[in-house]
Amino acid sequence: MTSNSSATRGTVFLVGAGPGAPDLLTVRAARLLGEADIVFYDALVPEEILSLIKTSKKTAVGKRSGRFSTAQNFINKQLLDAARKYATVVRLKGGDPMLFGRAHEEISYLVGKGISVKVVPGVTAALAASAELGVSMTKRGQARSVAFVTPRVGEGMAESSWIRAALAADTVAIYMGADEIGDIAAALIVAGKAMATPVAVVESASLPGAGVAYGTLARLPKVEKRDGPALILVGDVYGEAAAQAMEAERCRQASA
Amino acid sequence: MTSNSSATRGTVFLVGAGPGAPDLLTVRAARLLGEADIVFYDALVPEEILSLIKTSKKTAVGKRSGRFSTAQNFINKQLLDAARKYATVVRLKGGDPMLFGRAHEEISYLVGKGISVKVVPGVTAALAASAELGVSMTKRGQARSVAFVTPRVGEGMAESSWIRAALAADTVAIYMGADEIGDIAAALIVAGKAMATPVAVVESASLPGAGVAYGTLARLPKVEKRDGPALILVGDVYGEAAAQAMEAERCRQASA
Repeated sequence: MTSNSSATRGTVFLVGAGPGAPDLLTVRAARLLGEADIVFYDALVPEEILSLIKTSKKTAVGKRSGRFSTAQNFINKQLLDAARKYATVVRLKGGDPMLFGRAHEEISYLVGKGISVKVVPGVTAALAASAELGVSMTKRGQARSVAFVTPRVGEGMAESSWIRAALAADTVAIYMGADEIGDIAAALIVAGKAMATPVAVVESASLPGAGVAYGTLARLPKVEKRDGPALILVGDVYGEAAAQAMEAERCRQASA
Repeated sequence: MTSNSSATRGTVFLVGAGPGAPDLLTVRAARLLGEADIVFYDALVPEEILSLIKTSKKTAVGKRSGRFSTAQNFINKQLLDAARKYATVVRLKGGDPMLFGRAHEEISYLVGKGISVKVVPGVTAALAASAELGVSMTKRGQARSVAFVTPRVGEGMAESSWIRAALAADTVAIYMGADEIGDIAAALIVAGKAMATPVAVVESASLPGAGVAYGTLARLPKVEKRDGPALILVGDVYGEAAAQAMEAERCRQASA
């Protein structure tokens, strides 16, 4: 380090917190939460995981407001300041940092300032949801491609790359879409996806209050609005489970 | 349990081993390796992870041969027999079980036999590779859809769903394709993907011998054939890193 840089330079670890269950953290992530000098965490990371943080220097940097970019600049600046003061800075993100985690902005800003950044991957929501369902996203002879999309980032719904990818792939995981599931299903049907395509919604995957609901694009499962995040899964691999669940529902209604 | 079922019934845990580094196991996976009465593991799981298994009853159930279905039937039968004898049966799979892990066959067989199956999700290879690169798969304004595909399962290369998904998505992760990277790139170019599309190859992500190489579809990065698995990543998000790496390579050659 040259003499004009008298500041201590720490490492910023972008750490995936996984889907929510504390024991679905990676061993490395759990260790870093204990070792960190300072932690900045997403609003959605559950309390049970935050309790693994040993340092008292922990700050929520939620981005739930509509003013994304302002908030991002502020987070970037906080991370930089921390890296100039502390050896081990942890930036804890729900799921995995590199998939819809907006890691790009933070990495590019910090690396541009000469800060060392390391990424610790995590279990992403779609895989925790698949574990909850017990249904594989891929299946020999039926599903050999999976699209991970979000309808929330950037431009409008129509003619978007997320729709093209969702139409082309055998199985689709839709992140951050549960609040607009009706619009999403309509957009997919208009774009040419069959109305009978099976749909599963998994809420709070891996957490005690987890919920699973099945339907089709035309007959959407009900989203219960639990506290945790919800994921929409679309594809023929959910057909068998969806048919069973809808049949059970019909029988309940018939016998009521 | 009815009286005609006198056998003990255990639970089969399908456990994701993650990308290879032992501390990228989830906390739950690491605990289950210590607690299991018997473990069946994929050929690709590294020795360091296998050393966390406490029981002496551990069996490799590699499927590297061409005779997939025969091998799968035999694995199914072994898991069933184990579940009738032991309380905690672990089936350890590289990465995550629900993404190209062929979990479907095992779950469907075991559930059909009345065995309880639980899935423990893991860190999938594409996310470990992204961590290795330090490049996010998604990027605001540039990449909002990601396809995970494999060209190896089932039918031939042409007109396959993996190509459609790879063309439609902004970022593509290609599993189990490194041995045929030339054919894959040719198929993508013929299908309409730009020849200048950036490509990254990550070998043995998360392991000490990890390797990263950049190029484009027309000028493929060299695959070094390390021991561990390799992942091919395709998309504009790799453009900046690929340009830097190729420029550095040109300078090395010019000064040599």
